[in-house]
Parts: sequence; C-alpha cells; structure tokens
Amino acid sequence: MEQLKERIRKDGRVIGNDILKVDSFLNHQIDPALTDAIGAEFYRLFSAEKVDRVLTIEASGIAAAVMTAKYFGCPLVFAKKSRTVNQSASVYTSKAFSFTHKTESNVIVSKEYIKPGENVLIIDDFLANGCALRALRDIVLQAGANPVGAGIIIEKAFQPGGKDLRSEGLRIESLARIKSMSEQNGVEFI
Amino acid sequence: MEQLKERIRKDGRVIGNDILKVDSFLNHQIDPALTDAIGAEFYRLFSAEKVDRVLTIEASGIAAAVMTAKYFGCPLVFAKKSRTVNQSASVYTSKAFSFTHKTESNVIVSKEYIKPGENVLIIDDFLANGCALRALRDIVLQAGANPVGAGIIIEKAFQPGGKDLRSEGLRIESLARIKSMSEQNGVEFI
Repeated sequence: MEQLKERIRKDGRVIGNDILKVDSFLNHQIDPALTDAIGAEFYRLFSAEKVDRVLTIEASGIAAAVMTAKYFGCPLVFAKKSRTVNQSASVYTSKAFSFTHKTESNVIVSKEYIKPGENVLIIDDFLANGCALRALRDIVLQAGANPVGAGIIIEKAFQPGGKDLRSEGLRIESLARIKSMSEQNGVEFI
Repeated sequence: MEQLKERIRKDGRVIGNDILKVDSFLNHQIDPALTDAIGAEFYRLFSAEKVDRVLTIEASGIAAAVMTAKYFGCPLVFAKKSRTVNQSASVYTSKAFSFTHKTESNVIVSKEYIKPGENVLIIDDFLANGCALRALRDIVLQAGANPVGAGIIIEKAFQPGGKDLRSEGLRIESLARIKSMSEQNGVEFI
C-alpha cells in the first residue's frame, strides 16, 4: 500500500535495527483518513472471503480493525490483554509473549463473540515474531471457527513470524513489508 | 441518541444497581455501524467548535474516537494506561482511579501530540465518577491546550462525575444519560 509506505518513510523513526516508531500516525496518535484507507485496503484484499467477524487485540489494532469491520459490515471483537489468568469457563484464552515489553500476557475473548463455523479475519498493526497473531489464531481455532486470514499493517519481514505462520497455512496480507531497516538508511520495503 | 438508547435497552445487561454490561456492541464486541453513527453525532454536537485534536484513552474509547476524528478531519490521540510511572520528560501524566477494577492507573500522553493553544475534544465510552475524564482534561490543561468539551457515549448520571465536571465548566455531551438502573427494571434514561 503505497500511501502507507510513504507515510512510514516520512514519519516513521527507526531506533537501532529493529524498532520502528510509528507513534505519530498509528500507535499513539492516529491518522483517521489513513486508517480508513487501511480498512478499505483490507476489505479489497479479503473481499473474496465471506467474513463473519473481525478479530483484533487491544489497543493499537482497534482503529484499523473497526474501519475494516465497517467495510465488511460485520462486528469487530477485540481481545483483551491481562497479566492475570481469567479462569472463567466463559472465555477463550491464549498466551502471547511481547518481545517489546518482555512480558507474557493472557489474551482473552469471551466465548459469546466467536461462534463455531464462523469465518474470522484477524487484523493487527504489527507482525514481527508472530506471538500476538499466533494467540489470536489459537483463539479462533479453540472456538471451532475458521481463520480466513490476517491483515497486518506493518510486517517486519526480517523477523520470523510471517514466514512461520504462512508456512503453517495462514493467509497473511501485510500492507507494508519491511525487508531491513537501520538508523542510517531508514526503512527498506520488499 | 435514540439508536444508542434502543441498543442499550435491547442488548445491555444490568448487574446489581450500578454495572451496565455493553460488551456485545461497545466494550469487547463493537458494532462498527453504530460506532460510525456515534462519531457522526459527536461531530454534529461539537461542529460549532474548531477541533484540532480528539483525545481518548485506551482501549474501549478508541473505536468511537477514530470515527469522531474522521468526521472532524483531525488526528486522534489515545492516552496510554500504565501501572508503572513513566518519569520521562517527554510525556504528560495524570492519575485515574478505576472504581470498576479498584486500581489506580497512570494516564500518559506524549508531549509531541498535544500542543499549546490547540482545541481538544475528549471522547470516552463511559462517564461515572469522572476519574478518567478528569485525568484527560488535566493532561489537556498541562499541555496549555483548551478542552472544548467531552463527548461521552454512556453517562451514569446517578454517579457524580458528570455533575461535578459540568459545574467546573467542562461542556459534556452524553449520548445516553442513565437516571437509574436495576436488574428488575432495566435502564431508565433521562
């Protein structure tokens, strides 16, 4: 998605060789027009699928996911993150380790909001090691639902999550795939 | 907003006399069409104001806030919640006690994303005791910006936050104001 890549080139800040700060338009401040265009692009990419539900994880996936769900005309569910385990029989839980924060979170979705047999499209802002995406897919499978694919805004393609999950059969569409990045040379896309 | 009140009557669940669960369309599962209509309604209510920025707090305020910001054609900033204090000179921080979770959070916004003199519209999903709204207003004031008002989706008008903050001069527009509620009789709006 050229508009997104241009914005990353213009406003993204690379720290070291693996941190990309996009706080100014995606993760803390959000550009609603860009976010709407991202939702439209995910709709275009997955429009051949029957999507019953969009699933994301709090907090920074929510804005793009609500725009995507608006185009599909289906509900959005956002998984909650919690440091404490919710033992309730009414929820699906999985675990995701955050390499950014060096913490493990429980990822939680109420059983009411994913039903067996549904087609679920997963949306998230970043894909790097794939921990969050793996947890979301796990919850879809626990529900007996079908993960039709994952729409990712920015994929760090030099980290293994995308390759691993694609090889396991998950369809992943990333709007900007980063081949490499450095403070000196900025971001290079695939 | 009649569409919202109807939805609360239909799908909201009252627990005891002060908990309203709206997980099925607002807090966990989100109805994008309703959320878009909420954004349009906030735009209508505050359209006489010049709004430079919309401010909300993660996570359940984000969906309505991004729709509102889309109508205003301005950026959205979502405040982060953290249990740990961020001592960085680059952020504004305030504190908010959650009566629901019985915890105090630090509310954090980067100084880059609210500028002195700007007009800021605050959006949040619930107003009860007013702690989160007070923290957001505090951050706007710390930045030397102007809180033009607050758009609230559901106000529990039997709790003191709305009354107190209005008496301090904050303009608050709530789309559904609850006078009282109970498991027996459901929700009564003002």
